Amino acid sequence: MIQASEPIFDLAHLGHVEMYTPKLDESVDFFVNIMGLTETTRHGDSVYLRGWDDYEHHTLKLTANDQPGIGHMGWRTTSPQALERRAQAIEAAGYGLQWTDGDLGHGRTYQFNNPDGHLMEIYYETDWYAPPDELKPALKNQAMKFPARGANLRRLDHVNIMVADPAKEREFFSSVLGAKLTEQIVFDDGRVQAVWFSVTNKSYEIAIVADHTGHSGRLHHVTFAVDCREDVLKTADICLDNNVPIETGPHKHAINQTFFLYVFEPGGNRFEIANAGARLIFAPDWKTCTWNEEERKKGQAWGLQTVKSFHTYGTPPIDE
Amino acid sequence: MIQASEPIFDLAHLGHVEMYTPKLDESVDFFVNIMGLTETTRHGDSVYLRGWDDYEHHTLKLTANDQPGIGHMGWRTTSPQALERRAQAIEAAGYGLQWTDGDLGHGRTYQFNNPDGHLMEIYYETDWYAPPDELKPALKNQAMKFPARGANLRRLDHVNIMVADPAKEREFFSSVLGAKLTEQIVFDDGRVQAVWFSVTNKSYEIAIVADHTGHSGRLHHVTFAVDCREDVLKTADICLDNNVPIETGPHKHAINQTFFLYVFEPGGNRFEIANAGARLIFAPDWKTCTWNEEERKKGQAWGLQTVKSFHTYGTPPIDE
Amino acid sequence: MIQASEPIFDLAHLGHVEMYTPKLDESVDFFVNIMGLTETTRHGDSVYLRGWDDYEHHTLKLTANDQPGIGHMGWRTTSPQALERRAQAIEAAGYGLQWTDGDLGHGRTYQFNNPDGHLMEIYYETDWYAPPDELKPALKNQAMKFPARGANLRRLDHVNIMVADPAKEREFFSSVLGAKLTEQIVFDDGRVQAVWFSVTNKSYEIAIVADHTGHSGRLHHVTFAVDCREDVLKTADICLDNNVPIETGPHKHAINQTFFLYVFEPGGNRFEIANAGARLIFAPDWKTCTWNEEERKKGQAWGLQTVKSFHTYGTPPIDE
Amino acid sequence: MIQASEPIFDLAHLGHVEMYTPKLDESVDFFVNIMGLTETTRHGDSVYLRGWDDYEHHTLKLTANDQPGIGHMGWRTTSPQALERRAQAIEAAGYGLQWTDGDLGHGRTYQFNNPDGHLMEIYYETDWYAPPDELKPALKNQAMKFPARGANLRRLDHVNIMVADPAKEREFFSSVLGAKLTEQIVFDDGRVQAVWFSVTNKSYEIAIVADHTGHSGRLHHVTFAVDCREDVLKTADICLDNNVPIETGPHKHAINQTFFLYVFEPGGNRFEIANAGARLIFAPDWKTCTWNEEERKKGQAWGLQTVKSFHTYGTPPIDE
Repeated sequence: MIQASEPIFDLAHLGHVEMYTPKLDESVDFFVNIMGLTETTRHGDSVYLRGWDDYEHHTLKLTANDQPGIGHMGWRTTSPQALERRAQAIEAAGYGLQWTDGDLGHGRTYQFNNPDGHLMEIYYETDWYAPPDELKPALKNQAMKFPARGANLRRLDHVNIMVADPAKEREFFSSVLGAKLTEQIVFDDGRVQAVWFSVTNKSYEIAIVADHTGHSGRLHHVTFAVDCREDVLKTADICLDNNVPIETGPHKHAINQTFFLYVFEPGGNRFEIANAGARLIFAPDWKTCTWNEEERKKGQAWGLQTVKSFHTYGTPPIDE
Repeated sequence: MIQASEPIFDLAHLGHVEMYTPKLDESVDFFVNIMGLTETTRHGDSVYLRGWDDYEHHTLKLTANDQPGIGHMGWRTTSPQALERRAQAIEAAGYGLQWTDGDLGHGRTYQFNNPDGHLMEIYYETDWYAPPDELKPALKNQAMKFPARGANLRRLDHVNIMVADPAKEREFFSSVLGAKLTEQIVFDDGRVQAVWFSVTNKSYEIAIVADHTGHSGRLHHVTFAVDCREDVLKTADICLDNNVPIETGPHKHAINQTFFLYVFEPGGNRFEIANAGARLIFAPDWKTCTWNEEERKKGQAWGLQTVKSFHTYGTPPIDE
Repeated sequence: MIQASEPIFDLAHLGHVEMYTPKLDESVDFFVNIMGLTETTRHGDSVYLRGWDDYEHHTLKLTANDQPGIGHMGWRTTSPQALERRAQAIEAAGYGLQWTDGDLGHGRTYQFNNPDGHLMEIYYETDWYAPPDELKPALKNQAMKFPARGANLRRLDHVNIMVADPAKEREFFSSVLGAKLTEQIVFDDGRVQAVWFSVTNKSYEIAIVADHTGHSGRLHHVTFAVDCREDVLKTADICLDNNVPIETGPHKHAINQTFFLYVFEPGGNRFEIANAGARLIFAPDWKTCTWNEEERKKGQAWGLQTVKSFHTYGTPPIDE
Repeated sequence: MIQASEPIFDLAHLGHVEMYTPKLDESVDFFVNIMGLTETTRHGDSVYLRGWDDYEHHTLKLTANDQPGIGHMGWRTTSPQALERRAQAIEAAGYGLQWTDGDLGHGRTYQFNNPDGHLMEIYYETDWYAPPDELKPALKNQAMKFPARGANLRRLDHVNIMVADPAKEREFFSSVLGAKLTEQIVFDDGRVQAVWFSVTNKSYEIAIVADHTGHSGRLHHVTFAVDCREDVLKTADICLDNNVPIETGPHKHAINQTFFLYVFEPGGNRFEIANAGARLIFAPDWKTCTWNEEERKKGQAWGLQTVKSFHTYGTPPIDE
C-alpha cells in the first residue's frame, strides 16, 4: 500500500510555454536568428519553436496578441495514469477547467488554472520531433543537429510567473501538483515572496514571485538553457551586437545559483538565458532552502544589486 | 489503482561506491589532493570521501584490500516505502541477501547481488553532510564551500561494472530495480555488449559492459562529475603535471555524449572525470538508443579510436 | 648605435595566407557558413575572407586552382622603413624576387621565396576593414560585430608549411627575417625536424616541418584562432554535424601547448582550429625549447598518439 | 638610418609590481592560498611571488608598510642596448633618478618617476625562475607545474595607477618610453580622463586614470590574468566562499573588452582577476580608440553601472 507521505511523481517536466507577442515577426526573428531556436511549424497566429535538445514538437509557442504575456504553460505527465490522477486531484481541489483534444504536437489535455489564474495544462501523448534531412544530427541520440546560429539555446529550462499570493501557489504546487519546493523567500512578517518548484532533478522548472501591482496572470520571464557559463557570456556579446536590450547580468543568483542573463525580446517579454544544468538536486527529501528579507537584500551571489525593474516589470506591463 | 505499465520511481539516485585499493594512503592522497574530494571521516580500513556538491555523508568509500576493485555500490530510495517495495521485489526475483543496520552515514539497508554477483544495497535513511566551520559555504543552498583544490570534483556521477552477460543485467535493472534503459550496444548476432541505466534525469548512473575474460564481479570505472568541459581539460593538465597515468581522453563519447577523461588511481582502479551535467533526459518514455557493431567501431564521437585496454582492463586485474 | 645582437622588430605579424582550392564554391561555403569567416570581396578567381577580429581587409584568400595548396603568405612590417630594410636583407641573402603594387587590401609589396620555395611577401600599407552597416559592432574598438555563425573563427593564427630541409629555414627565418625561434624538434642525429617561429608575443605564426616525400612548396595547414578551449570543442561538434572530416583532436600539443582540432576543408587542405591566445611569450630572450626524438614519440600532451596522416599528408597531395 | 617615425621597441613587458600592505601575512595568505600564486623567496619585509606562467623570479613583490599602495613597478627592456637608450631618454626628459644594482631576481636597473611621481624602473638582466623538484612541470616549455590551488592566477597582466594629470602621462609614456596608446577617455572639454598603454601585443600593460582627490602616487589596482572567462567566474565563487570582498564584476569592460573581477586584498589594495589573453593587438599602427563622456556614462559593456568606489578609491586611501 502506498502511504500518503510518499513523493508524487506524476509530472515529468515542463513541456512548453506559450508566449504572447504584439510583434510576432520580430519575436520569431529574435528567437530563431539571435537565440538559435528552430521553427517546427506555423499555424494560424502561432509559430512553434524548440531548442536543439528539446525532444518534443515544440517548447515555445509564440502567438500574436495585442499585449505581451503568457498564453499558457504545459506540463507532460510521466504516464497516462498519472495524467488521469493529476486531473482528478486538480478538479477535486477546485482549480480544474476542462479536457481538450490538445494542440499541434500533443494529445489529450486537461486544462486548469493555478490560484492566480494563469492557464496551465497537463498532457501525456506527445509528438517526438522528427528533423528534416538537413537538420538530422550526426549522433542518433540527439534530437537534431546543433544549429551553430546565434545563442544556440539548448532547451526550455523554466518559467517565472507573477502572482498576487505566492503562499497560495506554494500550497497548490505542493499538494495538488506534487512538485518539490526547493527554495523560497519568506520575509520576517511571514509573507511568502517567491517560491521555486521542481518536478525533475533540476532545481526548478517554475518560479513564482509576488506581483505587488495587484494584477494577476502576469509573466515575469521564460528561460532557456545553454551548456555552460561561457555560453551565457557569448550570448551577452551577441545581444550587445544585435541591439537586444539587456536588463541585467550576466551574474549568478544566490537562489538556486543560476548563472543568468535577462534581456527583453521584441514583443516586450523578459527572457532569460541561463546555465542551469550544472546544479542538480538528487535528494528525494531535499530540505527547502528559505531566504529571509535581510539575506535577499544582499543582492545576487557576487554582490550585484538587483535592478529595480526586476521587481516591478512583468507582461502585460502595467501603467503606473 | 496503479497499473503495471507505469514507470517505477523507487530508486532516487546512486548514493555511494566502495572502491578497494591496495595502496590506501596513496589513493586517499590522489582523491583528496589531486581530485579535490573532501574526507568526512575514517573508520577501520576505510576512508569516507565526497565531492563538494554531494549532500550525503560520503559518496566514495575507499577500503584497503589486497586487490583493487569494487566493494559495493549503494542506491538511495525515494521513500521508506520504496525501500520496502524494492527489497521485496529483489527478494522475489531471487537476488536478495539480507537486511543490515547500514554503515557510517546511512541507516537500515537491504543488500543484494546483481546477476553477475556485484554487491549492491539500497537504503533510505541517510546523514546529510554537515561541514565543519572552516568548510561552511557562503551560499546556504550548497553542501560545503568550493574546495579550490586540484580537480574540484563536484559529485559522484556513475559507476561502470563488468559482467559476464549484460542481457541478464538489462532484465534485472529494468524489471526488478525499475531503472530506465537509455542506451545500449547490441551486436548483429544479438549479443548485448553494454547497457546504460538511469533512475534520474541524468542519462545514466550505471553502465554495465561485457567482461570477455570470463570473470565476474569486476569494476570498469567510477566517475565523478565536474561543471563543464573546460574543467575536464584542466583536470587533464593537472594529471599530466602530477604523474597520474592517463588512459585516454579528453574526448567525447558518442554514447550518451559524455565528455570524458580516464586515468588510473594509485590503487590500480580506472577513474573517470566527466561532464555529464549538460545532458539531461526528461522524457518519461525515452526511446532506448541502440548502437550496433558497425556504429561502435567508428570509435568515439569525434573519431578517436577506443584504446585496447578500455575493452580488457578491469579491477581486480586478470593475468592473461 | 644599434649593435648586431639586438632583436629585429621589422615583421609585425602574419597578415594573410592564400589557399588554393579545386572546389572554390564549396571551400567558401565551408569557411563562411561552418567556420564563420566573413567575405570582404571577390575578384577574379579569388574570394577574400577574414575573422571577426582581423583588422585588415582579408586574412584568408581562397583562389581556384586545379590542386589544393598554398598560394602565398604575406607578412605586415612594423613600419615603411622596416619594409625597406627587410627587402634589402632578403635580396642580399639571395632569396628576393621583386617589388609589386600589391593586391586588393594592401599596397607596395616585396616578394620572395623561403629556401624551400614557398612564395612569401612583405608589405606595410594596408586597408583597414570597414564593415558595412549591418556588420558594425556595438563596441567601437572591435573590427566588426561577432558573427554568431558556425565556429565564429576570431583571427588568423598561423600557417604550417612543409619543407625539404627545416635547418635551412631555421637560418633564413632567424637571420634574414628576424623571427624568434620559440620551439623546435631536433632528432638525436642532429636532423632538424620542425621549427616554430614568432614575430609577436604569440608563441608562433609559422611552423615549418620536414617533408619526407622529397617535394617542395607544400602546405601542412592553416590555422585560425577561437577564444577558448570550449570553442574548439564546440567546433568539433559542429564539424561532426556537418560532415566535415576530422583528422585528429581536439587535444593539446606538448609543443607550444596549442589546443588543436584538425579537419579537412572541401578543397583538400588541412585546416586547424586552435586556442593559441592564452599562451604568450614575453621574454625578449626566450630560450628555444628543443624536443628530441624520444620526447616527440610520447605523442601529444595528454598522450594521444599522432595519427599517421599528420606526418605525411600535405597539399598538393603526393601520389605514393 | 632609423627615422624618428618608427615605433620604439625598447620595453619588452611589465616585469613586476611592488605592492605595499599593512597586513603582510594576510596578504601573502590571500595571494598564495586563494589566488594561487607561488612564493619564490622572502627577504627583509618583502615576499616575492609569481604566477605559474611567469618566467621571471617574481612578478609581485609584497612589502610590509604602514599604508597600502604601490612601491614601484619594473619594466624589462628588449636588450641591454634598449636599457641604455631608454635610460638616456628618460634622463633627457628630466624624469630620471638613478642607476641601482637591482633587486633579488634582476640586475642593473635605472629608476625614474613618471610625471605623477610613481616610482618606476627598467632593467634587462633577469633571473629565470627555476622551480624546485616538487614544482617541476611535465611540459618543459612551461615555467612550473600548474598549482591547482585557488584561482590559479597565470601571469601578471597590468597595473592601473592614479595620477593628477593623465595628459602629462600620455605624453611621457608615448614619447619617452615608446609605449603604444591603445585606448583613452577624453571628455568633451578636452580633459584626458584615462589612458591605456601597451608595449606588447596585449592591449595594455598599464592604465592611468585621473585622481580627482588631488593626491599623487596612488595605486588603482594590480591585475593578474587567468586563461578564460570561466576561470574568472570560478574565482568569483572562490572569493565568495573565502570572504574576499568583491567590489564589482564579473563583467566586461567596454574599454579594451577585459572580462574583469575586482576584489580587495587584505591589505586594502584593489586587485583584479581578468581574462585579457584573448584580445591581442597586432597592428603596428593601431588607431587609438577614444571614448567620450557620453559613451563612458553608458557603463560597462553589457550595461552594468560602474560602482562609485571605482572612481574614488585608491591606495593609500584618502580620508575625505
